[in-house]
Amino acid sequence: MDKTTLKGAVLVAQSGGPTSVINSSTYGVIKAALGHKNVTRVLWAANGVEGILENRIFDINAEDPTELELLKQTPAAAFGSCRKKIKGEAELAQIVEAFKKHDVRYFFYNGGNDSMDTCQKVSDYAKKIGYDMRVMGVPKTIDNDLAATDHTPGYGSAAKYVATTCMELSKEAGVYGKSPVIVVEVMGRNAGWLTAAAALANKTGFGPDFIYLPEVAFDFEKFYADITELYKTKKNILIVVSEGIHDKDGKFITEYANETSKDAFGHTSLGGLASFLASEIKDRLNIKVRGIELSLLQRCAAHVASKTDVEEAFNVGKATFEAAVNGETGKMIAYKCTRDKSGYKCEYVAVPLADVANHEKKVPVEWITPDLNNVTQDFINYALPLIQGEPDILREHGLPRYARLKRKQI
Amino acid sequence: MDKTTLKGAVLVAQSGGPTSVINSSTYGVIKAALGHKNVTRVLWAANGVEGILENRIFDINAEDPTELELLKQTPAAAFGSCRKKIKGEAELAQIVEAFKKHDVRYFFYNGGNDSMDTCQKVSDYAKKIGYDMRVMGVPKTIDNDLAATDHTPGYGSAAKYVATTCMELSKEAGVYGKSPVIVVEVMGRNAGWLTAAAALANKTGFGPDFIYLPEVAFDFEKFYADITELYKTKKNILIVVSEGIHDKDGKFITEYANETSKDAFGHTSLGGLASFLASEIKDRLNIKVRGIELSLLQRCAAHVASKTDVEEAFNVGKATFEAAVNGETGKMIAYKCTRDKSGYKCEYVAVPLADVANHEKKVPVEWITPDLNNVTQDFINYALPLIQGEPDILREHGLPRYARLKRKQI
Repeated sequence: MDKTTLKGAVLVAQSGGPTSVINSSTYGVIKAALGHKNVTRVLWAANGVEGILENRIFDINAEDPTELELLKQTPAAAFGSCRKKIKGEAELAQIVEAFKKHDVRYFFYNGGNDSMDTCQKVSDYAKKIGYDMRVMGVPKTIDNDLAATDHTPGYGSAAKYVATTCMELSKEAGVYGKSPVIVVEVMGRNAGWLTAAAALANKTGFGPDFIYLPEVAFDFEKFYADITELYKTKKNILIVVSEGIHDKDGKFITEYANETSKDAFGHTSLGGLASFLASEIKDRLNIKVRGIELSLLQRCAAHVASKTDVEEAFNVGKATFEAAVNGETGKMIAYKCTRDKSGYKCEYVAVPLADVANHEKKVPVEWITPDLNNVTQDFINYALPLIQGEPDILREHGLPRYARLKRKQI
Repeated sequence: MDKTTLKGAVLVAQSGGPTSVINSSTYGVIKAALGHKNVTRVLWAANGVEGILENRIFDINAEDPTELELLKQTPAAAFGSCRKKIKGEAELAQIVEAFKKHDVRYFFYNGGNDSMDTCQKVSDYAKKIGYDMRVMGVPKTIDNDLAATDHTPGYGSAAKYVATTCMELSKEAGVYGKSPVIVVEVMGRNAGWLTAAAALANKTGFGPDFIYLPEVAFDFEKFYADITELYKTKKNILIVVSEGIHDKDGKFITEYANETSKDAFGHTSLGGLASFLASEIKDRLNIKVRGIELSLLQRCAAHVASKTDVEEAFNVGKATFEAAVNGETGKMIAYKCTRDKSGYKCEYVAVPLADVANHEKKVPVEWITPDLNNVTQDFINYALPLIQGEPDILREHGLPRYARLKRKQI
């Protein structure tokens, strides 16, 4: 680690899909950076690298500190996000040129694995042209699919939302003493972490009956057989499926129903799975079924955030700034956790961006039950500490009070 | 009011669609009835009048009081619900026969306007055959469409969920600094109260741009014009529509897309409107759009209940028992509220079931803005007091703790 003192401006930006706590992480960086002796000013770029390229850069020192603190309870990306993939050296040069112009020596990019790749590229390019700066990734994703970290900021809150919602739907499904079967669709393209979180509801006695993850092949016949068997003794059945479930040939189940299109990273756009499966079950088994897509609600439900997640997200931002100011670059701060008799503990450790960028961490197959329709106690032990606690939310008019930013452009 | 002392058993039952606080109302009756000198025992029937007809009757005295108290934070219908419409005198006779068998002298039926009709029929029949008993309706519905009451138990919590969710979606829609347009579909067949509650989010600065209610005719061309005009200056637009919006000829907008079917009360089944409108906007205006149906989530989201609603729901149950034991019958306890400089106040008054049964209270047309795409400050003044406060929720494993009943059948 290079301990050389580096003075200059800090720039923060956000990227990828929103979460309930991405702003808590960004605030962690900001809070630690404001007033630090090596920091000349703190800036933010709107919409991630897009804002850097388009010179949409703003002054954080102009913001009211009490509003900034409300970032801890403001969901989605307060500074705007993007899904931009850097196009070659010309854009990298333009980004570093913007850094030079504002004497930015510290760049913190808050995002998922695609964003860590962007981070790595910016870091490599700055090094290549000899511009002395420190580039750090700040992890974020409800998908929990980042490598080299125990879990990701944003996962615990989304998991708490999914588990809480499944409890409510379990009660709801049962009210008439007969069907419906309810099929709930949860986000997670290739990794079933968030879908698996539905199983946490079963700790309370009110949870889903079946959970299908994208880590194993989905088989329609087995699916109908699971429902048919349980339906003999239980008329109201709660099923949770990942949006990314696919058959043994890797074909997404949604592809059977929908036209597909690809996003900037070449991912297939998914959606509509819950209503498709609901209609399939109805046709095949002649049961009343309801499909529910949790859609965007699951990634911005800050009103039911996990306090553990909010605090860890803030801490990871703070730790990232501290690591950078102490000489780290090209790194991301990861969670290193222990779960034993003395409880759950989380430490913050620096890992190379290269270990994170473009990797995807999936639910271990041994955490899926042998009949492939639920998760094991090992998963529960892993995930349960992450949804603990409720933040004290400042409210106004009976509703959460979000940060209101002045957005003073420089 | 007949002040004659009437001794016997109390029977409670629930009917209609679930809410976050129906159990709080039923618990209000139970709490007041348990140990009262005129009450020999407290019973509950599963699935409303269905359970009475099928002799599925259970003993509340057998339940743990601390579990019963958790009914205040347990959503949906803890005693099971039904949508049964009574079929003639034979079924009424069977119901009253069941009351006689268990010496039920007090019947409390917790439901919406269809349920108040059932209540009225049971009350009339008991009177006709000279069986001395008291029959009271306990109001409930997220739709807020009951006549003769300022608002309904269940509305405030659903309204708080809708407003909170719209805040989150407003933040979510804005993250990329461009579209999507988001279309949110809210429950409410003929009355737009719950859809209108989305406007409460605008008090915070983060709310919907357009709200379309079923009280006025929906016009596709006006709808596209509204969006097109705003889209010139704002790329991310949040639209909230009631499931029951219809054109000037009364044809539901969902009917344009879906096959329809009718439920036991002759109502048309609705759904899928958000995705239909999303696809229409996309086709017509070539804008990225996302449709989100709040579906069952909005009527059971007890984790974001309004404390005002939970407490009023409990109080209305208690007041209903007290009115009955003091001689009232054939009545429902309504809310009578004042909103003035000294704040908001709610009183509990008895109204005849006939004033409530089969009536529907709609949003006053003068509370809809002249351009028919939002609601006025009068609506805000009306609804805002109803979403105030958050109940202290007992949690276990980081999740709400619901009542666990022994269900001891008699």
